[in-house]
Amino acid sequence: MRTWPTGRIGFGGDYNPEQWPSAVWREDIELMRRAKVSFVSVGIFSWSALEPRQGDFEPGWLDEVMDLLGDAGISVDLATATAAPPMWLAAAHPEIAVVDVDGHRLSQGSRQNWCPSSTTFTAYATSLTRRMAQHYHDHPALAMWHVSNEYGCHNTPCYCEACAAGFRAWLQQRYGDLGALNGAWGTSFWSQRYHQWEHIAPPRRTPTFGNPGQLLDYRRYQSDALLAQYLAEREVLREVSPGVPVTTNFMTMTHFRHLDYFRWAPTQDVVSTDHYVVDALPDPRAELAFCADLTRGVAGGRPWMLMEHSTSAVNWQPVNRAKDPGQTIRDSLTHVGRGADVLGFFQWRASRAGAEKYHSGMVPHAGPDSALFDEVCRLGELTTRLGPLVGSSVDAQVAILWDYEAQWGLMGPALPSALVQYGDLAVRMHRALAARQVTCAVVHPLSDLSAYRLILVPTLYLVSDAAVANLTATADAGADVLVSYFSGIVDHSDHIRLGGYPGAFRDLLGVRTEEFRPLRDGEQVRLTGGLLDGRAGRIWSEVCAATTADVLVEYADGPLLGKAALTRREVSGSARWYLSTDLDDDALAALLAEVTDAAGVVPVVPGAPAGLDVVRRRGDQGSFLVAVNHSDEARELVATGHDLVTDTAVVGSLTVPGGGVAVVREG
Amino acid sequence: MRTWPTGRIGFGGDYNPEQWPSAVWREDIELMRRAKVSFVSVGIFSWSALEPRQGDFEPGWLDEVMDLLGDAGISVDLATATAAPPMWLAAAHPEIAVVDVDGHRLSQGSRQNWCPSSTTFTAYATSLTRRMAQHYHDHPALAMWHVSNEYGCHNTPCYCEACAAGFRAWLQQRYGDLGALNGAWGTSFWSQRYHQWEHIAPPRRTPTFGNPGQLLDYRRYQSDALLAQYLAEREVLREVSPGVPVTTNFMTMTHFRHLDYFRWAPTQDVVSTDHYVVDALPDPRAELAFCADLTRGVAGGRPWMLMEHSTSAVNWQPVNRAKDPGQTIRDSLTHVGRGADVLGFFQWRASRAGAEKYHSGMVPHAGPDSALFDEVCRLGELTTRLGPLVGSSVDAQVAILWDYEAQWGLMGPALPSALVQYGDLAVRMHRALAARQVTCAVVHPLSDLSAYRLILVPTLYLVSDAAVANLTATADAGADVLVSYFSGIVDHSDHIRLGGYPGAFRDLLGVRTEEFRPLRDGEQVRLTGGLLDGRAGRIWSEVCAATTADVLVEYADGPLLGKAALTRREVSGSARWYLSTDLDDDALAALLAEVTDAAGVVPVVPGAPAGLDVVRRRGDQGSFLVAVNHSDEARELVATGHDLVTDTAVVGSLTVPGGGVAVVREG
Amino acid sequence: MRTWPTGRIGFGGDYNPEQWPSAVWREDIELMRRAKVSFVSVGIFSWSALEPRQGDFEPGWLDEVMDLLGDAGISVDLATATAAPPMWLAAAHPEIAVVDVDGHRLSQGSRQNWCPSSTTFTAYATSLTRRMAQHYHDHPALAMWHVSNEYGCHNTPCYCEACAAGFRAWLQQRYGDLGALNGAWGTSFWSQRYHQWEHIAPPRRTPTFGNPGQLLDYRRYQSDALLAQYLAEREVLREVSPGVPVTTNFMTMTHFRHLDYFRWAPTQDVVSTDHYVVDALPDPRAELAFCADLTRGVAGGRPWMLMEHSTSAVNWQPVNRAKDPGQTIRDSLTHVGRGADVLGFFQWRASRAGAEKYHSGMVPHAGPDSALFDEVCRLGELTTRLGPLVGSSVDAQVAILWDYEAQWGLMGPALPSALVQYGDLAVRMHRALAARQVTCAVVHPLSDLSAYRLILVPTLYLVSDAAVANLTATADAGADVLVSYFSGIVDHSDHIRLGGYPGAFRDLLGVRTEEFRPLRDGEQVRLTGGLLDGRAGRIWSEVCAATTADVLVEYADGPLLGKAALTRREVSGSARWYLSTDLDDDALAALLAEVTDAAGVVPVVPGAPAGLDVVRRRGDQGSFLVAVNHSDEARELVATGHDLVTDTAVVGSLTVPGGGVAVVREG
Repeated sequence: MRTWPTGRIGFGGDYNPEQWPSAVWREDIELMRRAKVSFVSVGIFSWSALEPRQGDFEPGWLDEVMDLLGDAGISVDLATATAAPPMWLAAAHPEIAVVDVDGHRLSQGSRQNWCPSSTTFTAYATSLTRRMAQHYHDHPALAMWHVSNEYGCHNTPCYCEACAAGFRAWLQQRYGDLGALNGAWGTSFWSQRYHQWEHIAPPRRTPTFGNPGQLLDYRRYQSDALLAQYLAEREVLREVSPGVPVTTNFMTMTHFRHLDYFRWAPTQDVVSTDHYVVDALPDPRAELAFCADLTRGVAGGRPWMLMEHSTSAVNWQPVNRAKDPGQTIRDSLTHVGRGADVLGFFQWRASRAGAEKYHSGMVPHAGPDSALFDEVCRLGELTTRLGPLVGSSVDAQVAILWDYEAQWGLMGPALPSALVQYGDLAVRMHRALAARQVTCAVVHPLSDLSAYRLILVPTLYLVSDAAVANLTATADAGADVLVSYFSGIVDHSDHIRLGGYPGAFRDLLGVRTEEFRPLRDGEQVRLTGGLLDGRAGRIWSEVCAATTADVLVEYADGPLLGKAALTRREVSGSARWYLSTDLDDDALAALLAEVTDAAGVVPVVPGAPAGLDVVRRRGDQGSFLVAVNHSDEARELVATGHDLVTDTAVVGSLTVPGGGVAVVREG
Repeated sequence: MRTWPTGRIGFGGDYNPEQWPSAVWREDIELMRRAKVSFVSVGIFSWSALEPRQGDFEPGWLDEVMDLLGDAGISVDLATATAAPPMWLAAAHPEIAVVDVDGHRLSQGSRQNWCPSSTTFTAYATSLTRRMAQHYHDHPALAMWHVSNEYGCHNTPCYCEACAAGFRAWLQQRYGDLGALNGAWGTSFWSQRYHQWEHIAPPRRTPTFGNPGQLLDYRRYQSDALLAQYLAEREVLREVSPGVPVTTNFMTMTHFRHLDYFRWAPTQDVVSTDHYVVDALPDPRAELAFCADLTRGVAGGRPWMLMEHSTSAVNWQPVNRAKDPGQTIRDSLTHVGRGADVLGFFQWRASRAGAEKYHSGMVPHAGPDSALFDEVCRLGELTTRLGPLVGSSVDAQVAILWDYEAQWGLMGPALPSALVQYGDLAVRMHRALAARQVTCAVVHPLSDLSAYRLILVPTLYLVSDAAVANLTATADAGADVLVSYFSGIVDHSDHIRLGGYPGAFRDLLGVRTEEFRPLRDGEQVRLTGGLLDGRAGRIWSEVCAATTADVLVEYADGPLLGKAALTRREVSGSARWYLSTDLDDDALAALLAEVTDAAGVVPVVPGAPAGLDVVRRRGDQGSFLVAVNHSDEARELVATGHDLVTDTAVVGSLTVPGGGVAVVREG
Repeated sequence: MRTWPTGRIGFGGDYNPEQWPSAVWREDIELMRRAKVSFVSVGIFSWSALEPRQGDFEPGWLDEVMDLLGDAGISVDLATATAAPPMWLAAAHPEIAVVDVDGHRLSQGSRQNWCPSSTTFTAYATSLTRRMAQHYHDHPALAMWHVSNEYGCHNTPCYCEACAAGFRAWLQQRYGDLGALNGAWGTSFWSQRYHQWEHIAPPRRTPTFGNPGQLLDYRRYQSDALLAQYLAEREVLREVSPGVPVTTNFMTMTHFRHLDYFRWAPTQDVVSTDHYVVDALPDPRAELAFCADLTRGVAGGRPWMLMEHSTSAVNWQPVNRAKDPGQTIRDSLTHVGRGADVLGFFQWRASRAGAEKYHSGMVPHAGPDSALFDEVCRLGELTTRLGPLVGSSVDAQVAILWDYEAQWGLMGPALPSALVQYGDLAVRMHRALAARQVTCAVVHPLSDLSAYRLILVPTLYLVSDAAVANLTATADAGADVLVSYFSGIVDHSDHIRLGGYPGAFRDLLGVRTEEFRPLRDGEQVRLTGGLLDGRAGRIWSEVCAATTADVLVEYADGPLLGKAALTRREVSGSARWYLSTDLDDDALAALLAEVTDAAGVVPVVPGAPAGLDVVRRRGDQGSFLVAVNHSDEARELVATGHDLVTDTAVVGSLTVPGGGVAVVREG
């Protein structure tokens, strides 16, 4: 077939046939047909099955699987099979294993235990990649290459000697001379100055706080080192298997913080990602929707693949919650609404043994005679009806800035408050706007912001000069801007921008803060004035005064009495807001309602009721409303057109049942 | 004397004379006589005193102690003195020290720092054992050999190279070929397949979850390796000192989970154990009573020795609670009622120095002029009056199944819920029944279950085919069975039993569960129907339906509405109950009341009031009620016979004073 | 100038010009003049800037700084610059790095990563010290030598081989022969006896509790090893730079527990210390005042230098609280009232980069145009008016005994209760007395106690025979004594003092305790009788009976009913109180009110109101009341004289404004 499935939303998942006797494979194919599966990812952890001894390539079993899939019309996203090194490689080259911050070389018997900087690993991995590409390039079932798996999930940061050497080479490239490095790292502090390159090491365990510049650069280096591993495999695939798209599955979840996906995305033929819901979060679905928008931002606004999510419980949380009936469909449509053109699951059949045997699958332990498999089939059927959405883009008038480097800065040592965690405020802002049916893009500070009426800048701690210029130019061109506390504090090298906080945005916002006053967990400070009158700040406060801005809200008690909590500077039609404290959900929603209204941001559909998440995609085949009803009761959606879910006409409004979904082709 | 003390319950404790000047020894003997001590365990940590340099055996001081004890008519449970290696051995052979999961070789200066797999250690330990046996075999005070001490308390798991080699040999023995091992461990998962034996290592620190099969087998191996160390010393004793009973003190406490005592017990001439109360438990005495019944189960129903417990506080808990006045006597009688024929304490005289100096002793720091020593004397006197109980067995109509392998399975990685801990439900069931004066046996799933009217199967996660067959045959022979959630899920290799949970017991119980729905800490689900109407499930729930069973209780809300919470399948007079959720103490008691009544289980004595724990022992010299009043107020015990405690006749009933005890010889 | 600033309270801070371009230095000097700075500490972390390669001494930049300071009349406390080794030294001698308890050698890139026992480090450090002394001895700005920095803050305990060798040598010196060591450490326990010196190692990670004697001696050794490092540098300075005072900054904070400052103090020309407020404490200012009195105790009652505190937030707490306006002045005056003649801050200018960039400075990131710098200037101005206090001593009628060795004992393994932490009760007693305007001295048990009317002995767990004799003699001479629970339990070797607790003080107090009964967190026991009637004990209780004392308060319930909670033994006018439990703040205050009244202890000024902290210093230039108003409202202080703060006469009373301070020269 040689092409990715078209005319529908892709549907499938990871398939690990080597865990099952071949008799099961036939049942798998039959069930995949029943579930209308269009693709599977195969071979991700098959290195030891494909190359049981060094150089012995034994693909026979996989040939059989590929043929079965091809015959059934199921496309294969074929792995390079390099995600987890086999035991023989680990035994022959113990130096490829990851070393932790204390110097322990980690043991095999798990997965992904290979060092990001290991050229030995690269050599073995690209050799297998070459064999795979040579062997399967012409196979009709092959539709895409899946390089490795979830880079960095467990193997970064590594602190071994290969990483030390790689880090030094990377630093020499970046800084040229040691003087520049010493300046960037501020090594005059604590007698840390380097006079020889070879004295530089990874930020291993130290008696107390390490150097923040070294830590920040090490995060940059590790992300780049893993990217180089990806590129090494991709180059082989491009050479041996030209024309077949190549991807690796990202992990755009707020708790995964090791890779700068904005740097990775340009190397992907299509951006794919995995997303798993973390039940301990205050609102797990808010994080899901945020991450879907972030993935689209990483993908430059283009459609993307959801390579993995789960049909129900995962296995790695303290208490692994099952999904409620219908939840998998709602989660899937939330991703589709925000730009996913493919829905993949880990994994097709729940494992019988191993550390992931309690991870749900499309076929559960109970077998196909189960409510879960029924729901999988319903979702599969639904994806065949959503073809018109494929390739369309997502409407958004608001952008939230996101930067992995700012996150890394906020992971540094010895900051003012451990209660300020990167992403918390961003997700909460996103959630407040989604509740108003305002769709957000989540984008990099250097991206083109001209399409947005409002730019939100939550806790963007570290910001480069170029990003400051980009944001300023966007505001000067008429966009509104809302910046939160602890944004623009340090430059690209994690140096304080002096003269008063927030140094990067002082002029833009017309404020100047003399001192931070972080609050204790649970502590509040009263506010007075305007739309926040009677509400309270929390987590953070600061000695803030307006210079050229208007003060809209003041602190109402304590040492900050009369200082500025919320300011606005109007410049020729553009409003630049500054929020110097944190707010609870209600107050944040009130603020964002005012800020979006003032910016002329309009909801996706007017009067959309609470609990109904609505997003609009727009493409060659028209515009589409994707609606997910998170409530237990029916909700009215104002729309006219045709509901692809129920295949019925919609005139004026549509009732979305409690827990249900709708996709209305408008017009 | 050469015999173990008879005609009484044994009474004594660990005696460490090497910690005191010899002048104190004479006072010790005098005080032991006053306390009616019948035995002491000597020499447990005396290696460095007996063999101060390699090969120099210097038993002079111990000869003197043995003679003093013998002259006083006190039997000696003589240690092989191998529990803690001396410094010279550690220095000459650093490789005998334990290595932790990160590869750190632990330092000497504590205790039990020797590797379970070390043959070097075996050689030195058996050499000392031989010297001890040769020297003391003919000593008249010698009554028993005490091998090592609390095997596995601190020295397992060890991850050193000797353990790696031992593990490989053990696996070759177990599996024969690598294919079988790969199958058992499910190594197709995550590319973990082994193609060479020498690549197998202990489950050292890995980047993420290790292989559950490897972890499970490593626990089995470590238990067996320690058992081999025991057997090596026992063989020397049998050769050199024939006819003298040999034991090592177990640790049958629910928090000690390293050894499979059911495998160890057949190697003991008499099963002995240590028990310490953990004050952080919700009901420390419930755990004590459970463990006493477990020890009897381990001992195959025969009487056993309580080698160590404490007169008052221990030293290793965050807050070390003293025992209340009378508590030591109540604890002791609880053990006696459940089969203990010997009561030992750690230790005779509280230490003046060292890490256990705050562990209580029979003689406290304050000296014999103390309430504590007075109570010790009262207990000693009492033991002399309980001779008729010696050798008798304990009545029980209910069995609770316990399996260390099931526990190890539940200690594995990535399970559905960390809130399900092996033993919690078992102890709570035992407690609920004890409150009704229903005595339980705690036995292995492969043991002979024919004597019981009711078999309880709490969270028996891992279960072998043979155990399934045993339980099924028992039910088919007429016994009732109650199985809880998360039982029978995996086989002996920790592989899921497919087709619906609980795979092992689906047919027996007539139920099928499609999916687990573990609940958050504190979360509840309402129940409806029958004896649990209006109550709530917690910790766990599941999508359970009856196949051939009757549904007695359903879930009353949420996604499980209408699913089965409690079922019963009646087959020719045998009831097979399944409980698919967890219950609070009240609801659990209500359920067990119904289940025991239905099974025809009767209390030890009718109408025994709350707070009075009553057990019946039965032997050559009649039947005995052992009653412990845990309440502060007097309680009536329906009985007729003679109270050995007060030496008074009992006609119809006996008043047990608040906090008091009674032992009534019935008839 | 060559002299320390006189005629004023010294005022200044750490100055790190190497972190800034030289253009900033001129602004620094200008701002220092504006702030009336009298001294700065320079060069503390400048090793890599002064000796960029081994042997290349490049002091040019520092020469310029010294000249600028000298020209401005600012005295320099010049560092030996040895606090943090440079990278070239770490690379050439990796063995100087600290090794942790698991054997990990810590990495460079932080600070103070040098082993206390390293003679290699000593050689390099004294070499640089010599160069510094030679180069700057004649510089007119030099006023004092500042050796290293905060010894032991991060580099103890170290567990390397050099420490092992050093420890053995120290032990040989201390014990002479192994028999004495074995006796002191109680190595008969757990077969730990040593027969060769070379088998002794640092107390590295063990499988369970280590030997308490070994742990205690290791703390002693590490403190002594660091002291030897200090002395090595001091000897060089005395030789090369005679006549210039030498100090190193201590860390007399209750959370710093590694050095025995009572042993260190005699080696200081002037005792200097650092103090940072820990916001997580129940009452951070109570700890501050306690530590100021402790520092004076360490200094033998003489005035001392506050080398470092902070103008506002620090950077190393989870949430780093800014100080309220006026707080820095209040904190500073609290130190001055308790004997500080110099007020130093870390640091002059808040860093722009590095791990301490969020530590506040005298010049904040916002620059001199800030409320914080204004307050610094006000404080600087104030210090110029307090010259008459310099050299005066502090009045105190009550002594609290403090002993780092007792603290180390209480840090040992396996104690009765983890809820008893050394220092907690001492600080709470101090706070209760300060609230009554009763000033305490905090002194070593072996110090001269003859000046005090009342000696408080809170949880003095370990106490030497000499200390017992000193306290007893003091009581016999007429002083009153109050001893708390868990005092006098062990001797200098951590051996129990047998025969009943508290062994060391049984005769002095006339009580005998048979057993401890520590209470659970939150648990209480009711009390009855006298001044504690109806109150409750907490944390601790014990089976205590009076022998020759009177029982004033008894336990009112539970197993301790009728036992002694508070006793008093009157002997010829001296009262010896014993408190066998812990009390809440109210009850403790009530008890101490009675105890101080009975001892004839009088407040600093009569009728001083709540919230006003008042201390009296007395010297050549008269007596002075130093008053700090911790409340938000004005308080009346009964005084007559002249207020140096406002430069106004005081007749009869003075109103100290809310949050304000006063210093009244009396008369």
